[in-house]
Amino acid sequence: MPIISLTTDFGDLYPAAMKAVILGITPDVQIVDVTHSIRQAGIREGAFALYSLVPYFPEKTVHIGVVDPGVGTSRRALAVKAGTAGSKQFFVGPDNGLLIPAARRLGEMEVYEITNGDLMLNSGISATFHGRDIFAPVGAHLSKGLPIEEVGQKVSDFVDLDFGYFGVDGPFLMGKVVFADSFGNVITNIPEDAVLRFCTFGSKVEVNGRKVPFVQTYGLAGKKEALALIGSHGFLEIAVNQGSAELQFGLKGGDPVAIKIL
Amino acid sequence: MPIISLTTDFGDLYPAAMKAVILGITPDVQIVDVTHSIRQAGIREGAFALYSLVPYFPEKTVHIGVVDPGVGTSRRALAVKAGTAGSKQFFVGPDNGLLIPAARRLGEMEVYEITNGDLMLNSGISATFHGRDIFAPVGAHLSKGLPIEEVGQKVSDFVDLDFGYFGVDGPFLMGKVVFADSFGNVITNIPEDAVLRFCTFGSKVEVNGRKVPFVQTYGLAGKKEALALIGSHGFLEIAVNQGSAELQFGLKGGDPVAIKIL
Amino acid sequence: MPIISLTTDFGDLYPAAMKAVILGITPDVQIVDVTHSIRQAGIREGAFALYSLVPYFPEKTVHIGVVDPGVGTSRRALAVKAGTAGSKQFFVGPDNGLLIPAARRLGEMEVYEITNGDLMLNSGISATFHGRDIFAPVGAHLSKGLPIEEVGQKVSDFVDLDFGYFGVDGPFLMGKVVFADSFGNVITNIPEDAVLRFCTFGSKVEVNGRKVPFVQTYGLAGKKEALALIGSHGFLEIAVNQGSAELQFGLKGGDPVAIKIL
Repeated sequence: MPIISLTTDFGDLYPAAMKAVILGITPDVQIVDVTHSIRQAGIREGAFALYSLVPYFPEKTVHIGVVDPGVGTSRRALAVKAGTAGSKQFFVGPDNGLLIPAARRLGEMEVYEITNGDLMLNSGISATFHGRDIFAPVGAHLSKGLPIEEVGQKVSDFVDLDFGYFGVDGPFLMGKVVFADSFGNVITNIPEDAVLRFCTFGSKVEVNGRKVPFVQTYGLAGKKEALALIGSHGFLEIAVNQGSAELQFGLKGGDPVAIKIL
Repeated sequence: MPIISLTTDFGDLYPAAMKAVILGITPDVQIVDVTHSIRQAGIREGAFALYSLVPYFPEKTVHIGVVDPGVGTSRRALAVKAGTAGSKQFFVGPDNGLLIPAARRLGEMEVYEITNGDLMLNSGISATFHGRDIFAPVGAHLSKGLPIEEVGQKVSDFVDLDFGYFGVDGPFLMGKVVFADSFGNVITNIPEDAVLRFCTFGSKVEVNGRKVPFVQTYGLAGKKEALALIGSHGFLEIAVNQGSAELQFGLKGGDPVAIKIL
Repeated sequence: MPIISLTTDFGDLYPAAMKAVILGITPDVQIVDVTHSIRQAGIREGAFALYSLVPYFPEKTVHIGVVDPGVGTSRRALAVKAGTAGSKQFFVGPDNGLLIPAARRLGEMEVYEITNGDLMLNSGISATFHGRDIFAPVGAHLSKGLPIEEVGQKVSDFVDLDFGYFGVDGPFLMGKVVFADSFGNVITNIPEDAVLRFCTFGSKVEVNGRKVPFVQTYGLAGKKEALALIGSHGFLEIAVNQGSAELQFGLKGGDPVAIKIL
């Protein structure tokens, strides 16, 4: 069965409308909820959720992403094909950067503006719910094998997004908070290789002035103790064993993180 | 694959018991969670959730709805067939009004009392979880093509439900709050056509004495600013762009809403 | 289609990574979320969730359970086959007791340590997310029919778990809180038969010194009134009709419960 993933800030109820529309077009499909709990209008968080998961999905998966504060305004709707021969995946969603880091992670990408009205919900397009009226049906058609060229014209001036600057600055490894997960683990934009060039497992580091061990896994810190580690996403993560680093450190998306070896 | 939707106030864990029972009867089925977060015993909210989604589901979908404060008491169990030839859907749940607005929206309906014990869980019926013991297995059998007449006798004295009066009263368009979604958008019982006869997009209106713009979509108000719009369900909705109208207006299910043109 | 169930304390996002891995190995499978809201590191609560649901799942279901505070440390990974001929089910998860009560409920069980690296995620095993890297792929292979002997050696020194002592002590029926569900119903470890030998429906009892009716179902108590009943899991449950016994009684997992007939 083909796979369609859903990543939204819709919370409850609205994802089911998208699924109903998808199943009306392609009933034999696996629908995977990536998350519907992205912070409202949290485009960067949604982009990170997709980015972190996309390597685990099989070829031909269609990812529908809808974190879309501009719905009903002039922002465009996009479909993207990304990856190398034999491992291509598809993305559908608004032109606000949400889809781009995940698509780029797969390699080469082609971006199309969705304009083909025949692919949209035939009962009419609402001004407020393109997830149901445009992205769900277009995603369903792509998962049935529709050539992506049929959604509309190729574009190159899409809205881009990355997770910001990271790097060494004097005694500090600097970066930014990208995402806080439902455990309260704080995930940064500093990738594994940059971290491991800077410090080694078992050393003590300071995170924003606070001393924590840099270790391989949560259980190597005491209960409710803070730690730094390489998270399962492959990025530097600040965590509290069986607790919330988001609360203990007061860190949120976009905040700077400075690591220093002690 | 046939489709079964689930709409409950069960929160966590209990929906999985329903799915286990369904898959034991009919393993090749699409199960769609509409919501399991209906306010406890919130029959009207559950009825609205089903009502708002039912037009998007394909023919033959079986909707199991369980918001059931009377479980284990003398309230009856119902199965409903609704719609016109070629677009019929089914509903299973308690006789407390939950299923009726959605079924009626599809057109003609036939209502049956579920009494056929052969269709119920053969390990015995609990007094507290008819979702698992009666509604899930009956829904699974209906989705496999069981004629609805086999669940029990047709009835006409079922508990009815509607979303209450709306209409023009002097300078006001009056209605009621039906549902607050997980964004905090407040959805009323006033349908699109009644709203558009009363005011036009771009005008200023008063909602319960507070001035807001009446516009097509969220992004046309400033961030954290209130607005009125026609929501994706086709009803007048009070919203706050990237915020919660439920909190800002202090509105909850059943509260009156009075709209005045400025 | 074969069935894989997931029971974790992962909250959001991480379950989707497990599903992506599963679908990459076996695309035609029913994945059922039992719960992803187990209290962080709540092994007993997770064990109870699995235990309570396992009788409702069909033969050959593979249950993946990941409540795993010891991930990345020396704790072992297990696969279990349990049940009698014609009704066997499988379990995959950490060696911390999580899987054992559910497996034992099905009857005879065989426990294997997972050591076969060929079954693990080929892009490498993280230190923090064995749900994605070990348990998901092993569960997917078992659901495709892999003989369980191929995961590794049989072991008998696994970590055991039960839900603790219950029994009559003078005028009291004593037990413990095992789980509080999302309604706030407090579920104890005292099974139906022990309760019904002690008291009869319709009697008044004291629960930890507080007088409540012992009745068949929630709706037999007044709104917001406390009651004791046999829950749908088959255990003594303390509840509040349309309210939360967890809050009213201040009870949490592991707390003692003493019942006295009045």
